[in-house]
Parts: sequence; C-alpha cells; structure tokens
Amino acid sequence: MERVINENAPRGHYTPGMISGNTLYISGQTSADPSTGLPAEGGFEAEMQMALDKMDSVLRAAGCGRDSVVMCQIYLTTMDHWDAANRVYERFFGDHRPARIVLPVGPLSKGCQVELTAVAEVAP
Amino acid sequence: MERVINENAPRGHYTPGMISGNTLYISGQTSADPSTGLPAEGGFEAEMQMALDKMDSVLRAAGCGRDSVVMCQIYLTTMDHWDAANRVYERFFGDHRPARIVLPVGPLSKGCQVELTAVAEVAP
Amino acid sequence: MERVINENAPRGHYTPGMISGNTLYISGQTSADPSTGLPAEGGFEAEMQMALDKMDSVLRAAGCGRDSVVMCQIYLTTMDHWDAANRVYERFFGDHRPARIVLPVGPLSKGCQVELTAVAEVAP
Repeated sequence: MERVINENAPRGHYTPGMISGNTLYISGQTSADPSTGLPAEGGFEAEMQMALDKMDSVLRAAGCGRDSVVMCQIYLTTMDHWDAANRVYERFFGDHRPARIVLPVGPLSKGCQVELTAVAEVAP
Repeated sequence: MERVINENAPRGHYTPGMISGNTLYISGQTSADPSTGLPAEGGFEAEMQMALDKMDSVLRAAGCGRDSVVMCQIYLTTMDHWDAANRVYERFFGDHRPARIVLPVGPLSKGCQVELTAVAEVAP
Repeated sequence: MERVINENAPRGHYTPGMISGNTLYISGQTSADPSTGLPAEGGFEAEMQMALDKMDSVLRAAGCGRDSVVMCQIYLTTMDHWDAANRVYERFFGDHRPARIVLPVGPLSKGCQVELTAVAEVAP
C-alpha cells in the first residue's frame, strides 16, 4: 500500500490517493477551490472543471495519466447539471472513456455542486 | 486495461465496462429500457429486473457470469423499495451473494427508480 | 473469490465481505445495533462508532487490520455531521489515513444516520 500526496492539503482524516497493488483509489474531490475553500467561481462548468483538475493532480502525483482512469463516480446535487457535467468531462478525457456512474446526492459541503472519485490503473 | 462494449449504446462519455487486471468495473445501469429510453414498464420490480439485466449484458460481454460479481452498489430513489429490490436481486443471483450496499439517492435521470453498478472478477 | 462471514447475520441477500485477488470489498455497514436492529443509542457519534466497529468486525473476519483499509466511503443523512464523523473516524484509524469520500444521501434504513463501505488490501 502506498500513499499518494498532492499539493492540496486534506481537510479531514484522509490521504488524497492510495495505491493497492496496481490500483489507485482517489479520495472525493469537490469543486472547492483549494486557494479559497469555496466552490470555484464561474458557474457549474467551472466547478466541474475544478473537481476534474483536482483529480488530475492526484493522478499526476501517482505518476498516472488521465487515460489511467478505469472508473469514475460523479456526484451532483441535481441531475439538471448532467449535460454540462458530461460536456466538461468529455473535454477532459478526450478519447478515453472510463466506466462511469453519475448520481444525484444531497447538499455537498460548502455549497459545492459536484464531487467525484475515481479508480485508476497504476503501471506495475 | 480493456474496454467492454455490449449492445446498449452509451448516452454520454463512458464505456459500459472496463477491465483492469482481473477486475471488471461496470458503469451505472439504470432501469431505463434501452429501446425506449424510459423506465421499464410494470412498476418497481420490472425496473429492478431491467437494471440487473443490463448489468448482466455487460458481464456477458466481458465473458463473466453472474457469480463473478464481487460487489454490487444499488441506488434507490426511496428505501421503501428495499424489500422489492432485495427480492428481485435474490432471484437474479440465486446462491451467489456478492458484497452489497443499498443507498437512497436523489431523483435519477428520466424518472428511473433504481440504478446500480458492480465490480466483478475476471478469470486471468 | 472468497466469502467473509462475521458474527452479524446479514438481513438481505449479501455477504458481509468478499475477497477478489488481494482486495476485500466490505458490504454497507449501517449504525444499526446488531442486537436490536435499531440505530446505536447515544447520538451521532455512537452511531458512527457502531458502523466503524461493524466494519472492523468484517476486517477481522478476513484477517485484516484497520491499517489494511485502502478506501472508505461514508454516507451521511446530513453533512452537518461531517465534523463529528471525522472526529470518530480519526480516533478509529489513528495514524492510518485511507482514501475517503463523505457524501450526503437520503434517509437510511431504520432511521440510521450513517452507513459506510470500504475496500481493504488482503495480504497475498
């Protein structure tokens, strides 16, 4: 088991990423801007981009690329954002299409409108 | 990493199943009937069966049987459907009992009352 | 694939833990007291402790310690319990900090205020 630490200090008792075998588990990444602690400004698409960028940061810290992601779980406060979420997500991943689930949950911390986790494959 | 494609074309940027090592990750399968895009007709049990059948289709496309499922996540719009969900699920799996969680979430896309994902073991 | 059975008999069609390769998948553990079927008495922190203790029981049945946990998913009925959940969780894990996500979901079965699952690494 190996801890993966990126530049964003966790608030709470967790590690940004954990590797077990060839699998990287990424902790929940909200749309909160690490520099302010508040949701990224600019509306939902900016929030979605922020959550993905924070996930990307954990991937890089583990030596993984975006095309290492095997499964991604996306949690929205309302499915009304599904189209916008999918649009930003598609731009982020390009030709790579991980397995995925998009689910509506309750109000997220600090008013964030999206949080996501992912499982990625680490080269042996 | 290997993509698993079944007969149901994804709406959105994802692959129905992804294999990493000996593990298959199955994307969220709602109770929407692939032929209409709407929730399966016949009430909640018909919807539960539809979601499981769609999961089964991904399993088959990966060369897996139902007894390959290791963990299943079931998302309901209300826990009032727990008993019915468990009943259909038990019939589907028979003697096999994967690890499982059943959770209540918000309103799912297109009025579906259930969505599920699963992790399965792929033979080496 | 290997089934992991602990002392708490499942209500429903599932196994408390399933091992695939070197990975243990733990079924959803609510804050319900196995001896009464009702949420642990004593308020939210007692409920959080109960859910963790039940997870611990599955870990032990699999021959794992708490420091085997790689990723933990925590589901709360309200994020107002985040601080208390984190406090009990930190005490439970000590120096070990798995990857984690904390999400707000709908009303859980039997009035429980927390449910959790985890993925752990099993020694080869």
